[in-house]
Parts: sequence; C-alpha cells; structure tokens
Amino acid sequence: MNKAKPTILVVNDDGITAPGIKVLLEAMSEIGRVVVVAPDSPQSGMGHAITIGKPLRLDKVDLYEGVEMYRCSGTPVDCVKLAVNKIFKGQKPDLCVSGINHGLNNSINVLYSGTMSAAVEGAIEGIPSIGFSLDDYTLQADFSHCVKYVKELALQVLANGLPQATLLNVNFPNTPHIKGIKVCRQAAAKWAEEFDERIDPHKRPYYWLTGVFQLNDGGEDTDVWALEHNYVSVVPVQFDMTAHHAIPYLNNWKFNV
Amino acid sequence: MNKAKPTILVVNDDGITAPGIKVLLEAMSEIGRVVVVAPDSPQSGMGHAITIGKPLRLDKVDLYEGVEMYRCSGTPVDCVKLAVNKIFKGQKPDLCVSGINHGLNNSINVLYSGTMSAAVEGAIEGIPSIGFSLDDYTLQADFSHCVKYVKELALQVLANGLPQATLLNVNFPNTPHIKGIKVCRQAAAKWAEEFDERIDPHKRPYYWLTGVFQLNDGGEDTDVWALEHNYVSVVPVQFDMTAHHAIPYLNNWKFNV
Repeated sequence: MNKAKPTILVVNDDGITAPGIKVLLEAMSEIGRVVVVAPDSPQSGMGHAITIGKPLRLDKVDLYEGVEMYRCSGTPVDCVKLAVNKIFKGQKPDLCVSGINHGLNNSINVLYSGTMSAAVEGAIEGIPSIGFSLDDYTLQADFSHCVKYVKELALQVLANGLPQATLLNVNFPNTPHIKGIKVCRQAAAKWAEEFDERIDPHKRPYYWLTGVFQLNDGGEDTDVWALEHNYVSVVPVQFDMTAHHAIPYLNNWKFNV
Repeated sequence: MNKAKPTILVVNDDGITAPGIKVLLEAMSEIGRVVVVAPDSPQSGMGHAITIGKPLRLDKVDLYEGVEMYRCSGTPVDCVKLAVNKIFKGQKPDLCVSGINHGLNNSINVLYSGTMSAAVEGAIEGIPSIGFSLDDYTLQADFSHCVKYVKELALQVLANGLPQATLLNVNFPNTPHIKGIKVCRQAAAKWAEEFDERIDPHKRPYYWLTGVFQLNDGGEDTDVWALEHNYVSVVPVQFDMTAHHAIPYLNNWKFNV
C-alpha cells in the first residue's frame, strides 16, 4: 500500500444497478477512495470478451452519494480497460475488486465469468485484483455475511500484495454460519449441457443454454469442497495458460513435415 | 484414434463464411469425416463468452459440397456446446479444430480469442483440441503455407492424444519460408490500450478500443520469439487457472476475521 488512502477500482458483470456491487463499493469506501466502472446492463457469462466491432460509451452517473461512478456500454473487461486508460489515465489504482457476483464463480466457472475476467484484466494491468462471488443467483441475495471477509481480504492484499501475475478468486457460501477462510485449488469440473429446445411461433426451433454442474474431483483442497463445508474459498488464479508440464511430452513428437 | 475414419469438429470465431475455416475444413476432409459448426457472424474477441440471456439458433447450411455444416447465432463456445449436445448427441468427435483464425492468437491473446476459447471448450468436453491462427488479419490472408502443418499436427494429436486437460495453441507466421515447428510457452505480454476517442453527430463522446502489443518477455522459449523467427509456434494450454505456486504464500497469511 503506497499511500495513506488507497484508490480502489470496483467493477462487476451483473451491471451497475446490481445489489452486489453496492455492497462491494460500500465496503471499499471504508478502506479507500472508490471509483466504480460497471456495465450498463447485465453481462453474466461474457468471459474475457472485449468489444472490437463497435464503439464504446462511458458515462458518469450519480447513483450513490459521494461515489465516483461510470456506466460502460461494453463488457466487464472493457470496463477495466476504459477505467485504466480514460479515468485513471495510467495512474494505476492500488486495488481492483470485482463483484460481488450474484452466483458462484468457483471451479471451471472462472473461465465463463465476467466477474472473474474483469479481475483477471486488472491483474494483467498489474493491479492487485480480487473477484468476489456469492452462492445466490437472485437479485434478493443477502450479502451481509460477506462484508467482513471482503474487507479483510482487500486489506490483506493491499498490505501484502500478490505473487506476480496472480489474482484471487473468492467465493462465499450462502450461509451466515461461515467456518473461516480456506485457500484452495480450482476443482476439476465441467458443465454438462442440456439445451432446452423450443419451437417459436414461426415453427422454427431455438435453444436455451442450460446445464448441470458435473464435479469430477473429490479433493478436500478444492474450492467446491470448501464451499460445501461452509468455508470462504480463496483460489489464487494465474493468466499464463501454458501447460508447462506438457512441453517435454510434445518435444518428444517427431514431425513428418 | 479409435476408428479408421475419425470424426472432426471444425469451429472458428471469424464466422462460417471466413476464408480461414474453408482452408481448415478442406484440410480436415482429407483426414476424416468433418462437421462444421461456426458463428453466423464474426465473433472475434469474444473470449470464453457464452449466451445466457437469449436463446440460440442452429441451422444446417449448404455452403461447400459434401460438407455437413451448421451456422449458430451464438459465440464460438456456444458452437462447441451445441455441437457436442445437439449434433453429436454425446458421441464425441475424435478431434476439435478451431480456425484458421485471421490474426495471431499467441501470448496473452489466448484469453481474448474466440478461436482459442472454442478449442478450450472442446478440451473441457474431453475432446483432443487444437486452435490454429495466422499472422494476417485480412480477409485476403494466404493460408496455403499452413496446410501441411495443420494436417500434420491434427494427425499427431489423433495418433498420440494430448495430456489430460490440455490443448494446443498453434500460430503461423505470415511467410511461406517456415523453418519448422517449435513447442513453446506463452510469452508474457499485455495490450497497452489507447482508445480512439471520437465525437458523434449528437456531440457525445465514444471510444474505439485500440491497443499496442506490449511484450515483457525476451525468452527464446516463447511463442512470440518462435513466430518472429519464422517458426510455427505450438503452445500446450491448460484450463485449470489455479496458480498452484501461490498457495503456500497465501497459507502464510493470518486473517483477522
């Protein structure tokens, strides 16, 4: 923490009017100077998408008294890029927090989640970053039991920093009876898609993406295990996707070309 | 390879009419039975986005003689999910190839790329998967020097398989004078955003995302180095994003909560 009052960028993927971001910006306002940049509409499942084919809008809005807020027409990752470039203008914030997401982003969901991708983008920019998510998809989600953990984790990251090119993925169980914080690895899992097939009024088929979470990992060191046992899960995430362990294997291949 | 004639799923992010996917499906038709599922419009930069808030369309089309093809209204990842569930119906293809992308997807671009995210989704589904990209963004790109490498890599993956939960990210330099194939790690880099700010006819500002590729890694074992020296770069990619090396560090933190 390089100054008395840190600057904190708050982003999310559920959109600027989501209850989860209000909880997060209020918690962060107790720690530092807060700047909020969030999508003008829900952007769940946008992953690491960026907007290339059309221009972006960025407008200052006045939703909560005394909070500097901007709504952005783009994706969660666009929000971070615009914040760094057009609002902070190269003066990086001390912390980037994303969420609190309405719905878990544990395990494989780190890839699909706009919340986590915004935090990943913060980390790529060299900003210590954390994504927060709660196991409740509804707009009526109760985030009150999360607040003290959110503040503690933000303070720890500000005080200690994070290993280079890493960030934190923090998920909360939907219970006030939390046993503590567990540092975990991402559980191996996938979504088994089902697709709800329907017929439109013009007799043409269309499909709704649905799915069942398929856990392939019983490890007690995973985020899924921690959440099932009422712990807050903290997974350190990296954005270097190289499978280093596979390099020697591939180097043994003989290419006939 | 579990049968005489393998089944190969071909996807991309530049859309079903892109020249790059035609080159790829033609190369794959020499190896096996090909099924193409591609977005009905360009989806560059969509990363691992999925479509949650609206339904999807999937229509059979007849673009090239004798090739089973479908256009999808969703993202590249949606294409893979729909292919696995509605076309293959659980009978997994033997290989999933994505591209050939018009433009490089080396280094950090693996995160933003719809081409690579489609291949990642294939790997999550347990299908041996490869993403292919060429260092030429134009629709006039010449892919002819890529074809023999595309076929060789597909055959090697079909014959040897890949380590569990990994896939390949293959990038081609834009030259016919290729020195060979190099297995690499992803170079550390980021996009330094600039944003082109303009004023619309109603006097309101808008922003075009632009950027400069900022390399922070001179390693001769990276994909950037290989491509600059006219090698085909092959990076093994994993989708477990856990920063395993950071877990002991975080376990030393004392939480005051």
